[in-house]
Amino acid sequence: MKDALTTHIPDFDDVIAAHERIRPYIHRTPVLTSQFMNELTGAELFFKCENFQKAGAFKVRGASNAVFGLSDEQAAKGVATHSSGNHALSLSYAAGRRGIPCHVVMPRTAPEAKKAAVRGYGGTITECEPSTTSREAVFAEVHDRTGADFVHPYNDPRVIAGQATCSRELMEQVEGLDQVIAPIGGGGMVSGCCLTLSNIAPHVEIYAAEPEQADDAYRSFKAGHIIADDAPNTIADGLKVPLKENTWHFVSNYVTDILTATEEEIIDAMKLTWQRMKIVMEPSCAVPLATIIKNPEVFRGKRVGVIITGGNVDLDKLPWM
Amino acid sequence: MKDALTTHIPDFDDVIAAHERIRPYIHRTPVLTSQFMNELTGAELFFKCENFQKAGAFKVRGASNAVFGLSDEQAAKGVATHSSGNHALSLSYAAGRRGIPCHVVMPRTAPEAKKAAVRGYGGTITECEPSTTSREAVFAEVHDRTGADFVHPYNDPRVIAGQATCSRELMEQVEGLDQVIAPIGGGGMVSGCCLTLSNIAPHVEIYAAEPEQADDAYRSFKAGHIIADDAPNTIADGLKVPLKENTWHFVSNYVTDILTATEEEIIDAMKLTWQRMKIVMEPSCAVPLATIIKNPEVFRGKRVGVIITGGNVDLDKLPWM
Repeated sequence: MKDALTTHIPDFDDVIAAHERIRPYIHRTPVLTSQFMNELTGAELFFKCENFQKAGAFKVRGASNAVFGLSDEQAAKGVATHSSGNHALSLSYAAGRRGIPCHVVMPRTAPEAKKAAVRGYGGTITECEPSTTSREAVFAEVHDRTGADFVHPYNDPRVIAGQATCSRELMEQVEGLDQVIAPIGGGGMVSGCCLTLSNIAPHVEIYAAEPEQADDAYRSFKAGHIIADDAPNTIADGLKVPLKENTWHFVSNYVTDILTATEEEIIDAMKLTWQRMKIVMEPSCAVPLATIIKNPEVFRGKRVGVIITGGNVDLDKLPWM
Repeated sequence: MKDALTTHIPDFDDVIAAHERIRPYIHRTPVLTSQFMNELTGAELFFKCENFQKAGAFKVRGASNAVFGLSDEQAAKGVATHSSGNHALSLSYAAGRRGIPCHVVMPRTAPEAKKAAVRGYGGTITECEPSTTSREAVFAEVHDRTGADFVHPYNDPRVIAGQATCSRELMEQVEGLDQVIAPIGGGGMVSGCCLTLSNIAPHVEIYAAEPEQADDAYRSFKAGHIIADDAPNTIADGLKVPLKENTWHFVSNYVTDILTATEEEIIDAMKLTWQRMKIVMEPSCAVPLATIIKNPEVFRGKRVGVIITGGNVDLDKLPWM
């Protein structure tokens, strides 16, 4: 499954090319502010709302960059991936827009809303157990059988360059940011932020936010090498996957710090955002706000970009129900 | 409680003056679109998102217009109202911004989230039973005791002129609208739409959407005179109040038609909007979409402005739970 692409580190020219390539297939999502949230945190927060993105998450940026960068010959065999959810439906969406097959390996425990959305976009699902080990084994079988192009959810340089277009838009939309914070799972979004900001705004601090119960990136960052858990358990289901070599490159070189929050803090921050900002977002998106509330000394008085990563939540299984 | 103001019909100069007066205290809310919703309905829908408004609802427009139009002498005694919710917290918000007292009579059954928000803005609540009769009796006592200026939730010309600023913004934000649709309870928002559109875009059709289980406006419209129910029962708790003479003037003269939807249709449309558009909105806001889905022949091929009236919903009591 490893090829030349996966060990190529994307540069900012790749980001510019990605942005041109994907523009017809993505939204330039709005940035929302909230006086209540500013008063609560003592910071000026600018929420980049990728929950309003096509297919409901930022992952459509990276997926579209991969799909629309394929040669016709490669594209004919389709694309394949494993994903805990949003990359799966983003890749299905992008493949659908190009009219090529999309094969997805998903944990059987993934939210039904995400499985239905993948099928709605025309993707084909093969289920695996909810562990990294099972996921990779089942995927190998699907990949070998179909010959489809493997688009890794985050360790693919095409994907990282695509995700980097999000923070590029944010920098165009908000002047004078001091800090950007995003949730971290496999590190695709955070790597995209690092790629963009290290090139066009190297003074901006980059924070990553992670659930305490899936804190492998935090421990990796402190240890100086990748530590991977096989099956962490958190309500922030998009953040259960480990760092890989390409995202580790960016995280280890450009991230200022990684902060963590408990499940209760994440749920409180999620509910508060729904109540006060009137937006539907996933638990993963609440981890940054939870860590900002928990660490006021880090953010007080700063202008902070906060990436709201996606809105594909199962409304019948909200964490406060 | 009736004075000269309540029988004055506002004109478009009042709307322009209101817009200038309230601009520092309100948001110019965004207009969202959804390819999914367009494909579902066969219409082009433009959602004016007053759920993102200050205090979480369009009612802050009318309330602010009333509060900031008071003389200092009048203002010193404060303002008072009865309301099923959003007008209560909007008036509390506006009074708080001006630094004057706000007395609110609310049904004891109103959502806890709304009561807490009224108190959070500094309003004082007196509870009544959930019927129009009880509400008006309790209010008379509060009004007599405090001498506060009565700001009716919708039958006040200052309030109607304030609500009219919403459709004025919508017309600036979207070109070529054929129709506008809004939920109808007491008729404040619909009257505001009539006031604006009859002046600046008289070719635009105005539809009102009402729950079948609180269809007094529908029956009034068909009968040609006001019919009021005392205590209708619907999940759309903002729409339980009857038309009054000032709103009847606009509704009877300028509304194209009133359409109704069942509770189930309202809940389905609400959940669909949360799922696909990722916005938190009240059941009342889903009534227009429910009627658009139910009456495709009325809206197909049209450019339709849809007023999303508010987002103050109790997240612990969602109707599909």
